[in-house]
Amino acid sequence: MDCVFCAIVAGDLPASQVYDDDRVLAFADLNPATTGHLLVVPKRHAADLAALDPDDGAHMFRVAQRLAAAVRASSLEPEGVNLFLADGEVAGQEVFHAHLHVLPRRTGDGFAVAADFASPPREELDRVAGLVREALADAP
Amino acid sequence: MDCVFCAIVAGDLPASQVYDDDRVLAFADLNPATTGHLLVVPKRHAADLAALDPDDGAHMFRVAQRLAAAVRASSLEPEGVNLFLADGEVAGQEVFHAHLHVLPRRTGDGFAVAADFASPPREELDRVAGLVREALADAP
Repeated sequence: MDCVFCAIVAGDLPASQVYDDDRVLAFADLNPATTGHLLVVPKRHAADLAALDPDDGAHMFRVAQRLAAAVRASSLEPEGVNLFLADGEVAGQEVFHAHLHVLPRRTGDGFAVAADFASPPREELDRVAGLVREALADAP
Repeated sequence: MDCVFCAIVAGDLPASQVYDDDRVLAFADLNPATTGHLLVVPKRHAADLAALDPDDGAHMFRVAQRLAAAVRASSLEPEGVNLFLADGEVAGQEVFHAHLHVLPRRTGDGFAVAADFASPPREELDRVAGLVREALADAP
């Protein structure tokens, strides 16, 4: 299997844990983008969002929300928090076991998101939304 | 109130909707970072993660996961997806009504995340994890 997060869940690799329950485990990221960077992972292996049990996903978010509050209440004292999930290599996924990042944010912390924001006309937004609605309607 | 997402939920402002249920609404972002950029918002106003009903949060994630699958299945054909939530101005939050971004990703789409990744020793990771565990234990 060679899944590093499964090895952490199994206790075969060390992790600086912050939270543990039947469904998920949360621990400090080995390569924090900011101080206090945490990962929430499902205990059941799921390579990506498509494989993730929706109940596990919903619970990951619940735990991430609690962790965000805890990080804010802690002496780590961030000014904000980002939640981030990368699904697929192009999206920045490096470990193919789904995980939700909890990123404490502070002014000048070196974390930045860059994007070419567009301002399409309403007809284009409606066209895109229609394609997504069609795919939703066709979903199993 | 002057909340743009509350106005969309109330039907007082237009939106290119993709999904609607009792708890959440999802629609195309007016300024898409990538083609197919969607937002999932709770119908009940919550300025930020601290104010967000945890059931609403969990449901936002469920819907985002379904939308990610729909976007992937659609003719928008992304190669990956990011889920992103900004909590606080320093984290990039611009509208103070909690929202979860669903960002279709493609090679060369102009979206990028930059960070100063660290490699702290285990003792530092354990120290940080301990502070978060303490705050979790003190949480109401």
